[in-house]
Amino acid sequence: MCRVAYLDNNATTPMHEKVLLKMLPFLKDSYGNPSALYDLGKQANLAIQAARKEVASLINSKDNKIIFTSGGSEANSTIIMGYCLRKAPKAGHIITTSIEHPAILKACEFLEKEHDYSITYLPINSDGIIELNQLENEIRNNTVMISIMMINNELGTIQPIRSVGEISKRNGIHFHCDAVQAVGKVGIDVEELKIDSLSLSAHKFGGPKGIGALYLFNKSDIMPLIHGGGQEEGLRSGTENVAGIVGLGEAAKLAKERYEFLKEHFVQLRKLFLSKLEEQLDGWELNVGGEFVYPSTLNIAFDDIRAEALATMLNFYNVSISIGSACSSSSPKQSHVLTALGLSNEKIRSSVRISFGYQTEESEVLYAAETLIHTVMQLRQLSIQKV
Amino acid sequence: MCRVAYLDNNATTPMHEKVLLKMLPFLKDSYGNPSALYDLGKQANLAIQAARKEVASLINSKDNKIIFTSGGSEANSTIIMGYCLRKAPKAGHIITTSIEHPAILKACEFLEKEHDYSITYLPINSDGIIELNQLENEIRNNTVMISIMMINNELGTIQPIRSVGEISKRNGIHFHCDAVQAVGKVGIDVEELKIDSLSLSAHKFGGPKGIGALYLFNKSDIMPLIHGGGQEEGLRSGTENVAGIVGLGEAAKLAKERYEFLKEHFVQLRKLFLSKLEEQLDGWELNVGGEFVYPSTLNIAFDDIRAEALATMLNFYNVSISIGSACSSSSPKQSHVLTALGLSNEKIRSSVRISFGYQTEESEVLYAAETLIHTVMQLRQLSIQKV
Repeated sequence: MCRVAYLDNNATTPMHEKVLLKMLPFLKDSYGNPSALYDLGKQANLAIQAARKEVASLINSKDNKIIFTSGGSEANSTIIMGYCLRKAPKAGHIITTSIEHPAILKACEFLEKEHDYSITYLPINSDGIIELNQLENEIRNNTVMISIMMINNELGTIQPIRSVGEISKRNGIHFHCDAVQAVGKVGIDVEELKIDSLSLSAHKFGGPKGIGALYLFNKSDIMPLIHGGGQEEGLRSGTENVAGIVGLGEAAKLAKERYEFLKEHFVQLRKLFLSKLEEQLDGWELNVGGEFVYPSTLNIAFDDIRAEALATMLNFYNVSISIGSACSSSSPKQSHVLTALGLSNEKIRSSVRISFGYQTEESEVLYAAETLIHTVMQLRQLSIQKV
Repeated sequence: MCRVAYLDNNATTPMHEKVLLKMLPFLKDSYGNPSALYDLGKQANLAIQAARKEVASLINSKDNKIIFTSGGSEANSTIIMGYCLRKAPKAGHIITTSIEHPAILKACEFLEKEHDYSITYLPINSDGIIELNQLENEIRNNTVMISIMMINNELGTIQPIRSVGEISKRNGIHFHCDAVQAVGKVGIDVEELKIDSLSLSAHKFGGPKGIGALYLFNKSDIMPLIHGGGQEEGLRSGTENVAGIVGLGEAAKLAKERYEFLKEHFVQLRKLFLSKLEEQLDGWELNVGGEFVYPSTLNIAFDDIRAEALATMLNFYNVSISIGSACSSSSPKQSHVLTALGLSNEKIRSSVRISFGYQTEESEVLYAAETLIHTVMQLRQLSIQKV
């Protein structure tokens, strides 16, 4: 039986071994600068073009609309700053949600503070979903962008992107979708969904850290964030991270191959995990459930438990889970997402996030469930003894 | 005898095999998100801290003054935009040189165009060096930054950084040094040189592409370019490129170990190369030479030769060299550096850049010299026959 369980795949996933195999030549002998005109350079350049094709194909975009970045945060900052400031150097308006990733929220705050922007943060209902009529009501004359994520990193909730796309299009407003948690999990067709720009990150679906991409339908829409030698058609300069790009391309290819069964796999893992909890443990609750939740994420509150103590104990048993968003655990504060969901402080402090990845196996989930049940019982026992 | 010669190390260097060995665990089992609180995350975090120490030590900085970026261009854009716009949101003044890398020049142009900045581009003399009295004369009341590179990528010329540091300090102006071509080649002491900020890039000295760093003495001086989860003390968000950072750390460590003999090694290779040319070929000239040139770069003009034809033929013989800067060859235009040096258009079109790296061997240089001599003769022969 498995004695290790990594269930924090929304924070990052292990790299697929095929991805590493594909990257290795570019970490060894194929080291040319893609801008160079000799063969070693051309090799690297061709590899980048092939990867661009794979990434484009994953979201049904044209190749030339993919801009490689160093990750999801750079992609998000590039579009928020690069599009909004080109469109309205001062006092523009952005509509986003209260549960976006900090990469969106902090960029919006920056525009608010430094460029007199106003930002509307749409609330979510108890299903973790925005209300479309509220979105429509918030549109103003100076609204330059609607930025709404596809799948939330803490809750797994899927926003009504198709309708957001339609509303944006109808009002002639740029629709940016942070799809960092969605790409590699769900099939995405940017054209059909009327998405103007979309962010993705390789390490969230079996690719390497330090590489991502921005899909941008209209490249003349933005000013670059990083200036220099004119790579990525001048929109993102800097010698290309060739191995990283090749890794992203391979991760995209593998993701496309497994779409068919991945969701079903997660549904099964989720059922297994929840059935164990239902059988053996009282005093817990899914913070959000139902049809709007992608099955790989479970956000659960345990009565009379401090999430931090639980996660620490689980780590001792080699079970890795998260409390709040990993991306902001370097600045520990209460999850803005769980707050937006309307949970009490007490409940938020008792909540953990469990997230499956493409590589997660049944035995891992079983071990994690049993260890978690055991640990929760132990902690409750201890707290009773203390009283 | 060696039948391959890679002599374009100013464009990029092959990754050192020890760097790859150090990176591999973080591309395999040590895949944790450094922000996570469980062991897998802490491992990654510790590795980042160790790498930060190595990078800091390479330039005699304190660890906490190193900000990891996705490369040199991001480091340069971060400081130019992040420092200048904080200091003067509008109409500031920057002094730089006419031979900076496009990462500096394009960022300055951006400030000129979008924020009413004025930029002074210091000329260079025939030694490829700025004149310090000109620098002093150009300082204005609204000068917010002096940005001068350490070693030029096309010429190899070393600017009088120590004096620039003193002038900057005396005038209370931030001194940024683009040291992308210098780090890993020459010993740098940022404190002694009075450098306020410095950019470096791993792939220029045996590290991976897609990772670099900004040294910044006073971190409160800048606004971030990339917003998000608050990594790098909030100055550069985004899940860390752990493997890349570890690779940069190892490259820094290796660079420090070889300083002692590296320059002497380059001096020998240069002598060897030039002696072959002197013995066997007429009608060529070093575009810049003398004491201000770091010995790993040779920029040479060949009479009656088109650099492009020469480079293409050499590529056929597996000799890789560059015409103009690789970083801008995706947008082919005449080298702004050679223009600044005062060369005629004819001479610029006849010029190639040869650059050695830490791994360059004598046999490579010998093969390249002989192939180059042979090819130049052949091309000249062909051109005579055409007439």
